[in-house]
Amino acid sequence: MPVLSPGGQDICQTPEDWRRGPVETIAIRTGSRVEAVDITGQVQDVVSKSGAKSGVAVVCTAHTTAGVTINENADPDVMADVLDTLGRLVPKSGGYAHVEGNSDAHVKSTLVGHSVTVPVEEGRLQFGTWQGIYFCEFDGPRQRRLMVQILSAG
Amino acid sequence: MPVLSPGGQDICQTPEDWRRGPVETIAIRTGSRVEAVDITGQVQDVVSKSGAKSGVAVVCTAHTTAGVTINENADPDVMADVLDTLGRLVPKSGGYAHVEGNSDAHVKSTLVGHSVTVPVEEGRLQFGTWQGIYFCEFDGPRQRRLMVQILSAG
Amino acid sequence: MPVLSPGGQDICQTPEDWRRGPVETIAIRTGSRVEAVDITGQVQDVVSKSGAKSGVAVVCTAHTTAGVTINENADPDVMADVLDTLGRLVPKSGGYAHVEGNSDAHVKSTLVGHSVTVPVEEGRLQFGTWQGIYFCEFDGPRQRRLMVQILSAG
Repeated sequence: MPVLSPGGQDICQTPEDWRRGPVETIAIRTGSRVEAVDITGQVQDVVSKSGAKSGVAVVCTAHTTAGVTINENADPDVMADVLDTLGRLVPKSGGYAHVEGNSDAHVKSTLVGHSVTVPVEEGRLQFGTWQGIYFCEFDGPRQRRLMVQILSAG
Repeated sequence: MPVLSPGGQDICQTPEDWRRGPVETIAIRTGSRVEAVDITGQVQDVVSKSGAKSGVAVVCTAHTTAGVTINENADPDVMADVLDTLGRLVPKSGGYAHVEGNSDAHVKSTLVGHSVTVPVEEGRLQFGTWQGIYFCEFDGPRQRRLMVQILSAG
Repeated sequence: MPVLSPGGQDICQTPEDWRRGPVETIAIRTGSRVEAVDITGQVQDVVSKSGAKSGVAVVCTAHTTAGVTINENADPDVMADVLDTLGRLVPKSGGYAHVEGNSDAHVKSTLVGHSVTVPVEEGRLQFGTWQGIYFCEFDGPRQRRLMVQILSAG
């Protein structure tokens, strides 16, 4: 069940291909073990390229030691507080059964969630004033991939 | 990128307009700093107005200090326990970096989630016996908005 | 608002019926109070039966003392760590208001979430290498139901 293109390049080149082709991917490189990356612009690019006017964008992590969330995009301290609090609730060392040393990252992935679903109107992601989409890295730094599926309304 | 109509009134008046127009909005007024508001009836009204028979309703908060969840709608103590437990895990004062004093609300927003996606059949939201949709206020009281996007199945 | 067929059997028999009929259901029997059940194969069966080629599958619990998540499907210790950590954060006895003795299960349901939305391409659920879908039982053992709604892309 191949999901992601080698190297993470765009699989589809045109709106026509996109509608017939596999789900779109976004590739990012994280720089720390725990980090929040604002991917709002990249998701909007996928929406724009799709030609979709009205519907939703479903944005999914392809990894089980990461998550996707929507939170404030004005003050970076907000996502820092989110990540710090998760680290306090789910510490890196905690008598876990899984022996790879990243159980905390798996737990955080379930708490934060695998995807977000964002309304689209007139070809634009629809947010409240302060909302942005964040990829949450919990076991980096790594090369990471997200999947974006666009669904039309009506 | 305007999202919400001034005053939160309905933007679209008919099913025909609705399919062409912006995502629907629900306006609510919360009464406490932390509170769960049952919005099931308002979401069903949006579904009914849309004319959609089969698909899903995606219900999103437009705010980053609030969330949306599905939980028991029979005994109000259930949502009280949910909110109390969140308050214990993520206290209001906790050495946060964000200086607005509402970091706990942002963290809870990510834990609870920005949206729920509910199946629709024969024009009705599909739930198990005890399920209802709750808007979770974490930094009220305030005027709040939700976005509802309807997607058809098939 | 009837949701689930008696006994949890499939309501629709063919892709044609499926498109006209109610949302599909998956029935499972859990064996412990707290347990993670890999339902990936059953969800793929629903996708295959639907005939859908490209879109998403929305997988929802019909219960408020359970959740649905995506996490690692290779080492069972991962989901064990997730459930153990949730049990530490939200203990069974905690001075809850709800008198049925299962408030912890309701809180975990909101933390984990009511549904997952998974991309579909070429009739297959699209995952990263290690991802699978888990039904999270928090107040079993019981007979449980999930709803699966398929939405087409484009």
